[in-house]
Amino acid sequence: MIYFDNSSTTKPYSEVLDSFRKVSEEYFGNPSSLHGLGAQSEKLLSQAREQMARLLDVQINEIYFTSGGTESNNIAIKGTALMHKGRGRHLITTEIEHPSVRESMEQLKELGFRITYVPVDQNGIVKLSEIEKAICDDTILVSVMHVNNEIGSIQPIQEIGQLLKQYSKILFHVDFVQGIGKVPLDLRASHVDLCTISGHKFHGLKGTGVLYIRNGVKISSLISGGGQEWKLRSGTENVAGMVAMAKALRLTLQKQNECLNNMLKIKDFLRRELEMIEGVTIHTPAFQSAPHILNFSIQGFKAEVFVHALEEKGIFASTTSACSSKRQKASNTLLAMGIPEEEAMSAIRISLSYQNTLNEAEQFIAAVNEAVGRLRKVMK
Amino acid sequence: MIYFDNSSTTKPYSEVLDSFRKVSEEYFGNPSSLHGLGAQSEKLLSQAREQMARLLDVQINEIYFTSGGTESNNIAIKGTALMHKGRGRHLITTEIEHPSVRESMEQLKELGFRITYVPVDQNGIVKLSEIEKAICDDTILVSVMHVNNEIGSIQPIQEIGQLLKQYSKILFHVDFVQGIGKVPLDLRASHVDLCTISGHKFHGLKGTGVLYIRNGVKISSLISGGGQEWKLRSGTENVAGMVAMAKALRLTLQKQNECLNNMLKIKDFLRRELEMIEGVTIHTPAFQSAPHILNFSIQGFKAEVFVHALEEKGIFASTTSACSSKRQKASNTLLAMGIPEEEAMSAIRISLSYQNTLNEAEQFIAAVNEAVGRLRKVMK
Repeated sequence: MIYFDNSSTTKPYSEVLDSFRKVSEEYFGNPSSLHGLGAQSEKLLSQAREQMARLLDVQINEIYFTSGGTESNNIAIKGTALMHKGRGRHLITTEIEHPSVRESMEQLKELGFRITYVPVDQNGIVKLSEIEKAICDDTILVSVMHVNNEIGSIQPIQEIGQLLKQYSKILFHVDFVQGIGKVPLDLRASHVDLCTISGHKFHGLKGTGVLYIRNGVKISSLISGGGQEWKLRSGTENVAGMVAMAKALRLTLQKQNECLNNMLKIKDFLRRELEMIEGVTIHTPAFQSAPHILNFSIQGFKAEVFVHALEEKGIFASTTSACSSKRQKASNTLLAMGIPEEEAMSAIRISLSYQNTLNEAEQFIAAVNEAVGRLRKVMK
Repeated sequence: MIYFDNSSTTKPYSEVLDSFRKVSEEYFGNPSSLHGLGAQSEKLLSQAREQMARLLDVQINEIYFTSGGTESNNIAIKGTALMHKGRGRHLITTEIEHPSVRESMEQLKELGFRITYVPVDQNGIVKLSEIEKAICDDTILVSVMHVNNEIGSIQPIQEIGQLLKQYSKILFHVDFVQGIGKVPLDLRASHVDLCTISGHKFHGLKGTGVLYIRNGVKISSLISGGGQEWKLRSGTENVAGMVAMAKALRLTLQKQNECLNNMLKIKDFLRRELEMIEGVTIHTPAFQSAPHILNFSIQGFKAEVFVHALEEKGIFASTTSACSSKRQKASNTLLAMGIPEEEAMSAIRISLSYQNTLNEAEQFIAAVNEAVGRLRKVMK
């Protein structure tokens, strides 16, 4: 099996599953319990929080554990809107965000908020000037993703942060889900107020995530109750899941150090080889793009057909983001880049992990060449 | 170790952890992915959903997976309020609900909703007539827990359901977290519209839950995005967690069949023996109470001191619900029952699982007797 769909989800590291089991079995107490079993669980949870904070270079009390990226995006956006609606009712985001950002914004519209969707250029990159233009007196939030999940373009987060620094009433939210462990982001230098992370995108477990909230920033809680996570996110903490996530991030960042060059080599190889295939257009920009995502179309083939042809050879790629793939609509990001719908409908995304090899990439290229030839014959 | 704090959380069954690992490792695909790995995951998720539906005797499409009981309570209450605010802005609940119900209600107050907290009698049981009295023209939801988490009183859910059946505009939400696997509840016969379940209370994993939504009932989504769970709860599904939860429920219901009588025997024994200790008052009603919870005070001792004394003997009990224990306030339920604050502050909760034995109960009673004697001497 060649798994080239790591932006949809990753295979959990074996060591991460070991930790999950050990914590679930031996330290199963409720961290809120007053007795020793509770205290042991709470200690492990604190250690996981410390580790996440250290790895992200932020303060311990800026790490809020959640059930995943979608929840973190929802809390960041809706929590800001509910807390600061007195200050203003205008939010800014881009045309290429993950559905959990877009849909959160759309739900806020129904509650009387105004949303501006800022366009991107032909490389899928948002322009600073467009964000600046969109800012109003009553803007309370700007939400921009770090690495686009469909084509891998990297947004100018630090520049946007510098711009927003001048507006004390505007919070800055960054969806860091695709970038973490692949493309560094300095949360402090970028003046990020809120940042979303998902555990299962870096070989942690599904159902685990983080919302970073900068010290001093106040937002409303979406899920209230027992007051866990400093009253921001109630519910018995998934201690084993959070320990597993912290370990997964540690291992991933270690691999980033060791294997990033190899990943870049694989991506370059894939790009070069794909460009030589007749009818292929690469949508991922050559510069300012993440090392693990490559999005391309092959003229004349619906993406679905091609993805299935690859699967017959044991290769797993994606038509678009997993969250959108069943809708069978063209990728929002590609359309926002000005790519015609028909071409967008034939887009294929491959996304690497540090476990993929150059040999797998070679097999992939051979499979693409073979499938293109065979399918073209069938179609004639 | 004698673990008598199963209402806070339970130890996951070993078989449940086996399933979790197997699914996480071998079926790690994103259920939303179009390819075969995604399809395999989706199939497992569907099977887990079918199993949960069968075990709860409801339809498959009435099972919505969530990250736990607190989230399910929040979605049920806030989702109803947001969806039906045009119909009315009044909600009814009781004085003895879990913080995730109470806090959800309190947050809705800030958005202009009215909440009525219905009182309970001296046994911690809500009266039907009080609910009937509270109903207004603009009531949209009644939320009543099934088994109280602090004293174990069973609420008359079926009778309340029968009453509410006459009001077509009112939805009925039941927090079933403490009752499931211990006290049967027929969701259909009780005309329940929304029902909350938490995996880690029956030897499943933390971070897993269900919201049952009766076919035809519409509520708003709190966490939106990729449209998972029929658009009610977005986010990549925690497939392994849900498979684990379904298995945990199956095993628990099996044990309910085999071990309920034994649990009742243990509870009777504990009740009888505790009543014989000087200064002990039992708060859990003798009738209409769950088989696994027993709440009592020992005159003159702060609950905390006593819980620590027990812990020294390897026995884990609780002062109140885990979610409230660190606040060091008296139990809401006990206060609502009319118990004086000082007495409530000395309340201890023990909560059993089917794994506990009569021998453990005997050791517990011996430990209580010893500790009472020793502490009384110290205090003199």
